[in-house]
Amino acid sequence: MTESEIRLAMARAVEEVRLKNPLAPSITNTVTQDFVANAQLAIGGSAAMLYLADECEEMAKIAPAFYINMGTAMPFYAETLPRTAQALYENKKPWVLDPVGIGLSGVRMECLRKLKNFKPSIVRGNASEIIALAKFWELIEDNGGQVRGVDSTEKVSSAKEAAIALAKFTGGAVAVSGEEDLVTDGEKEIICAGGSILFTKITGSGCALGGVMAIYLTAASPFIAALTATTIFNLAGTKAAAQTEAPASFKVNFLDSLYELNAEEVSENFRAVGSFENMFKLSLPSF
Amino acid sequence: MTESEIRLAMARAVEEVRLKNPLAPSITNTVTQDFVANAQLAIGGSAAMLYLADECEEMAKIAPAFYINMGTAMPFYAETLPRTAQALYENKKPWVLDPVGIGLSGVRMECLRKLKNFKPSIVRGNASEIIALAKFWELIEDNGGQVRGVDSTEKVSSAKEAAIALAKFTGGAVAVSGEEDLVTDGEKEIICAGGSILFTKITGSGCALGGVMAIYLTAASPFIAALTATTIFNLAGTKAAAQTEAPASFKVNFLDSLYELNAEEVSENFRAVGSFENMFKLSLPSF
Amino acid sequence: MTESEIRLAMARAVEEVRLKNPLAPSITNTVTQDFVANAQLAIGGSAAMLYLADECEEMAKIAPAFYINMGTAMPFYAETLPRTAQALYENKKPWVLDPVGIGLSGVRMECLRKLKNFKPSIVRGNASEIIALAKFWELIEDNGGQVRGVDSTEKVSSAKEAAIALAKFTGGAVAVSGEEDLVTDGEKEIICAGGSILFTKITGSGCALGGVMAIYLTAASPFIAALTATTIFNLAGTKAAAQTEAPASFKVNFLDSLYELNAEEVSENFRAVGSFENMFKLSLPSF
Repeated sequence: MTESEIRLAMARAVEEVRLKNPLAPSITNTVTQDFVANAQLAIGGSAAMLYLADECEEMAKIAPAFYINMGTAMPFYAETLPRTAQALYENKKPWVLDPVGIGLSGVRMECLRKLKNFKPSIVRGNASEIIALAKFWELIEDNGGQVRGVDSTEKVSSAKEAAIALAKFTGGAVAVSGEEDLVTDGEKEIICAGGSILFTKITGSGCALGGVMAIYLTAASPFIAALTATTIFNLAGTKAAAQTEAPASFKVNFLDSLYELNAEEVSENFRAVGSFENMFKLSLPSF
Repeated sequence: MTESEIRLAMARAVEEVRLKNPLAPSITNTVTQDFVANAQLAIGGSAAMLYLADECEEMAKIAPAFYINMGTAMPFYAETLPRTAQALYENKKPWVLDPVGIGLSGVRMECLRKLKNFKPSIVRGNASEIIALAKFWELIEDNGGQVRGVDSTEKVSSAKEAAIALAKFTGGAVAVSGEEDLVTDGEKEIICAGGSILFTKITGSGCALGGVMAIYLTAASPFIAALTATTIFNLAGTKAAAQTEAPASFKVNFLDSLYELNAEEVSENFRAVGSFENMFKLSLPSF
Repeated sequence: MTESEIRLAMARAVEEVRLKNPLAPSITNTVTQDFVANAQLAIGGSAAMLYLADECEEMAKIAPAFYINMGTAMPFYAETLPRTAQALYENKKPWVLDPVGIGLSGVRMECLRKLKNFKPSIVRGNASEIIALAKFWELIEDNGGQVRGVDSTEKVSSAKEAAIALAKFTGGAVAVSGEEDLVTDGEKEIICAGGSILFTKITGSGCALGGVMAIYLTAASPFIAALTATTIFNLAGTKAAAQTEAPASFKVNFLDSLYELNAEEVSENFRAVGSFENMFKLSLPSF
């Protein structure tokens, strides 16, 4: 895939979503559902959050893509998550997994163990989470480090091996979020710059990114969907941060910018600026 | 009821709520609770969201009105929803039903079947949901169409028969939300214009509208409460859309406008501009 | 403790939190989780919301402080809340209790009864809630008054006896929120002014305050943590209200102001302006 093919596919994904308003239902944490849904709507998609196993199974059959975020697990997730992921897998529906909270015991890890069989099309997380998942699924060696809580203690670059191993295992893509973001399909690796430090001062930007990837999965391959979502988030974040230096107004500006960015702006701002071990560099202009 | 009587009753509802800060508790989906509560507070009401059957039953006895929204059903809704609706019915308390998600199987439909006996004072939904509910409760013929998800696939006008049938059955009012909105008590039908296309680009404006209807039920009949809530939403939406073209700042402006509109502005903007099969037209000025 | 010692301890708490980004996990209501998390992030902390008993117990062992808010209790709270509070108590971890919804029957009161044994470091609530808790825990005489719902029907001053009794029992601090706020450790009582009436027109400012107190508990005593959180909220509220008169834009400005205020601004605005029965007066400048 050449750089211009990637750019074209990204533009198509942005455009198709704006035209068709596709639905990607979510099982996602209660803290950031409003942000996830509003980000999905802002790029042109539709949102529906669900908890019940039978409803999720049914939706897995009829919806074109799905988002599963492990945050704020409740007791009934033990039933809902594996049944939903299995229905998605059996119906060949693409889905995004955000393993937030990995490392905490209980229902969450039991679910994550089962989800391995139902290969998510995109795994999205911070570096700590991606490393922890690759270890937990026994795709890389476990050297004893641990992740706890929701914030990363690792740099994005440190998750490169884990991300590639996960992508090779699922046959999909992996997106590692951080100061710079890594998107890989196990073969190609792309570093995405841009965004804003203010993303770390509002809750849920990672969750919203995962939800937006699920929307783009209705119109593109896992690799392109992950790349498109990451790029539009970084662009909207850069644009929002140019208008304010405080987090709540940043969030308003960010969602407004997500809504305003068009296919051309997103695809034009993708640019390979060199290659290093198969790695493209995505450089973003400042607004 | 003449047009000027309607206008007077609307003004009284807006004023009484601003004076008395009445509480309408809610069982409502986890995605939009923040928006529902803030909309209820913005018009002068009080908010409390609950999940437990015994707490909801207790609140049904002491609160003057209640809001039940079916979105994001959880396993324990199977107990909570019917017991709450029964307590409301037995204590003659007015309540709003938003049948969002109707058509999905499971706990949701089992609950909706039972809720028929406890006649909601207002049913609020988009055209698809109102048609689906009238069919599910066997009030109109089921010609085989189906609704799935949370967004309407039907025009408001197509739900007229279903809305009238529901209102006649409950003895209350029905509000169908869309590009134009239909409010009926089974006899009178009023079309409300205004609002903004941006309502479809933020999550929860329908839920918030249902919550606000429940607040106005503490100060007016179901028909007037539905009409007042619809009118103040359309006015605030029109006003907000005049200030911005993007969804997140629209939401902030919309809630601010809900807070600022007074009884006179709401009632003055109600105007019957003709009659067609009992139908009034509510025309709204642009800001 | 002299006034200048209090001021110094407050400045240290604000600064340490900005430097170390400490995590205070929460069990808190689904309505306002987004607001709680964003307020915690705005002052420099980290947020994680949880529901499962085993995960909360685990977090109680490793996190430096915790926030428990009783709103929107769900069936599994019967297990989660007591086990979490016991783990906090046994591991000598400071925690904040917000008894919102006290007076409603069911799981909530059963939990509150058990929580007495695990002495919260800070109890935060409005006057009605603080009085109800002191009665329910049999720390003051029950003269028959009752609290229902989430809004206070009492003035802050009327909760003075209850607040002191609670603080003496727990050995920690109690914060009563209202037009003016009372913070006491059972010995000292401080009245905090400032803030804005607009706090009553947005949902969750009390919850967010409790969450922020939990963050400051990682860097200060219960008394100082309660005082610092109350002071920064009042300052940010005063600042936000100077920029807008409507609730949604107030909330955005408020969170932005929370993010911008520094240690000096917070500690300088603490000023004892007299003493009356051990009472300091905290007077705030207008912006």
